[in-house]
Amino acid sequence: MALIVLKFGGTSVANTERLFNAASIAEKAWRDGEDVVVVVSAQGDTTDELLQKAAEICPAPPAREMDMLLATGEQISISLLCMALYQLGCPAVSLTGWQAGMTTDSQHTASRIRYVEPGRVKKELAQHKIVVVAGFQGVDEYSDITTIGRGGSDTTAVALAAALGAARCIIYTDVDGVYTADPRMVTGARKLDEITYDEMLELASMGAQVLHNRSVEMAKRHRVDLEVRSSFTNEPGTLVREETMESRNVSGVARDLDVAVISLTGTADVPGIAYKIFDRLAEEKINVDMIVQSAAENGQKHICFTVDQEHAARALELIKRQGDVEYRDLAMDPDVSKISIVGAGMAGSTGVASDMFEALYEQGINIMFISTSEIKVSVIIKSEDTERAMQAIHDKFFG
Amino acid sequence: MALIVLKFGGTSVANTERLFNAASIAEKAWRDGEDVVVVVSAQGDTTDELLQKAAEICPAPPAREMDMLLATGEQISISLLCMALYQLGCPAVSLTGWQAGMTTDSQHTASRIRYVEPGRVKKELAQHKIVVVAGFQGVDEYSDITTIGRGGSDTTAVALAAALGAARCIIYTDVDGVYTADPRMVTGARKLDEITYDEMLELASMGAQVLHNRSVEMAKRHRVDLEVRSSFTNEPGTLVREETMESRNVSGVARDLDVAVISLTGTADVPGIAYKIFDRLAEEKINVDMIVQSAAENGQKHICFTVDQEHAARALELIKRQGDVEYRDLAMDPDVSKISIVGAGMAGSTGVASDMFEALYEQGINIMFISTSEIKVSVIIKSEDTERAMQAIHDKFFG
Repeated sequence: MALIVLKFGGTSVANTERLFNAASIAEKAWRDGEDVVVVVSAQGDTTDELLQKAAEICPAPPAREMDMLLATGEQISISLLCMALYQLGCPAVSLTGWQAGMTTDSQHTASRIRYVEPGRVKKELAQHKIVVVAGFQGVDEYSDITTIGRGGSDTTAVALAAALGAARCIIYTDVDGVYTADPRMVTGARKLDEITYDEMLELASMGAQVLHNRSVEMAKRHRVDLEVRSSFTNEPGTLVREETMESRNVSGVARDLDVAVISLTGTADVPGIAYKIFDRLAEEKINVDMIVQSAAENGQKHICFTVDQEHAARALELIKRQGDVEYRDLAMDPDVSKISIVGAGMAGSTGVASDMFEALYEQGINIMFISTSEIKVSVIIKSEDTERAMQAIHDKFFG
Repeated sequence: MALIVLKFGGTSVANTERLFNAASIAEKAWRDGEDVVVVVSAQGDTTDELLQKAAEICPAPPAREMDMLLATGEQISISLLCMALYQLGCPAVSLTGWQAGMTTDSQHTASRIRYVEPGRVKKELAQHKIVVVAGFQGVDEYSDITTIGRGGSDTTAVALAAALGAARCIIYTDVDGVYTADPRMVTGARKLDEITYDEMLELASMGAQVLHNRSVEMAKRHRVDLEVRSSFTNEPGTLVREETMESRNVSGVARDLDVAVISLTGTADVPGIAYKIFDRLAEEKINVDMIVQSAAENGQKHICFTVDQEHAARALELIKRQGDVEYRDLAMDPDVSKISIVGAGMAGSTGVASDMFEALYEQGINIMFISTSEIKVSVIIKSEDTERAMQAIHDKFFG
């Protein structure tokens, strides 16, 4: 008998009908003889309603009390889902984060899971109950309730799957898997049957938004087989694992619009320029994504980098105020987008990058700059070219 | 520095304005140098909304899951109240039932408090924080969340006051104390400065509805000084304690409309009649309040008793179906009310009962039957006479 962990997000438990849908998915697995653990998020708008209540009282509430408040959202979901399971004739038991042994540090509203003590979960499974666990929450060493921030419930599910040695962790969501590109944007985009952790991480960081990176990183670290699946169809989705059966050159094409380019032209060709710039930005917690520095020419070099749009103006200002970096021109361009191709087999293959550049050339799209890694090639282009670029690149690799 | 426990009910924390009102009452006590523990109920309609969610899913949800669901109501209140306190500049910390060491049996939805382990509460008080505890809830020996049923938050407050050796437990509510009679009904009714536990118990059981009997019983057992006070005025209310400074003959007049009289006339004057009737009713969990049996006459006796209206028809049917009790007539009358005077000094005084009967006689009100105890005299009259009777009796003792 295998153990599986199922995770349902807020939209998948938003009302009575959807709760019964989630319950019947768990019921089916249970009747098939699986040991079933279910992790759920707060229902639909619950978290927003609770945030609203807090905002009315206190503009900056203490983080500990926010956690106390927000944790009720998942506690409501787990009890209601158990009631639905009970109504379907399945024995079920709900457990809060602390009851499930989800132990975190004390960084309220953004805690890290330190370890899982799944004794109670195992005990209930041994009685062949469906165990329904509150996602997103845990307890710290002081017995205080914590929440684990963005992507929390996915991370709870993966952590439980790791601690219990589950055969698989299935993340139910409102899409039916991971696609070669966003199907709302690219004609011919198709669902992938499988993808590696690393590919998924690259895709997620570019805004694929199917799985939160944190949960994928944890799955990778503990070798948990993850699956993304639609709660509406319950058809096989996309499996995320260490290695895929066949490593593809390119698994997907992604775009990121939340990017701005900052360019310094004509800086001196002396050591320490890059250090001075990026150390200052790091001090201010400004995250720099791509960095490209050209080879020096006539004793001058050019440095370009990208930051997210929120921090672009601030980054520009910091460099301007910095006395020890000289340059001829400093410019910021927010009207750009980053297009990337991701594939675990890319490193062992030739011509992948040039195929991408060819597709862009055929469309007459200018590449502002390029950055590559083992499993990814990213280019910065003008944002107005984004859709044409996506379609052309996708056609080139998957057409 | 004295320790006080303040309890705010659902209406007293129903919205942002009222939360701040409750917070400022706690703040004042704290700034006066008291150690302050606050117990709160769920906000206004929260419990009803949660019950509604459950009812949509499951007509008879498992009690354990109901507790998991309902306990979120108080958890929301405690976090919001702490945010309000924080906004007023007071350090505060919220604790759920399990965090506050409220340990109960496993009778879900109607658990009994077994003991309180207030270590965490004391630790927070030692740091001069206001400790805000979720009423109504606890945890059993399996680490399952429980709720303690009707009157729960009052009982939580009293249990904490007892465990912490508090100087006083103040129950904030929407009335400003205990009155000599319901002021909406009786002209000249006035607030009592103090009242004994026993008097309060008698008054509460007759529908005074200021304090739940369970909390008064617990206060009596642990000698906790209770005070009922309005959260709107925060004026001194009514103190409930073991002994009042001066024991009055009569402390209050109360009425109970939820009563029906069942009369058996002409039963045989042989042993065992009462046993047979009331044992059968007890088996069916029908609670009998007053029982009056007349002296036998001509080998026959009459038995009258009262039950609440909900169970009257069922009680009548049980007696009819009972083969071993013979009687001439069996009747049920729901158009009655019970009027009682309560006073701890009554037992040592003469003429109290006759003063009550005189007041009724002067109004031409017929007494159907009478029952007395150490601190109470109750009469059953026609319900149409209720208001006149209340006013006349109140005028006699307090006029």
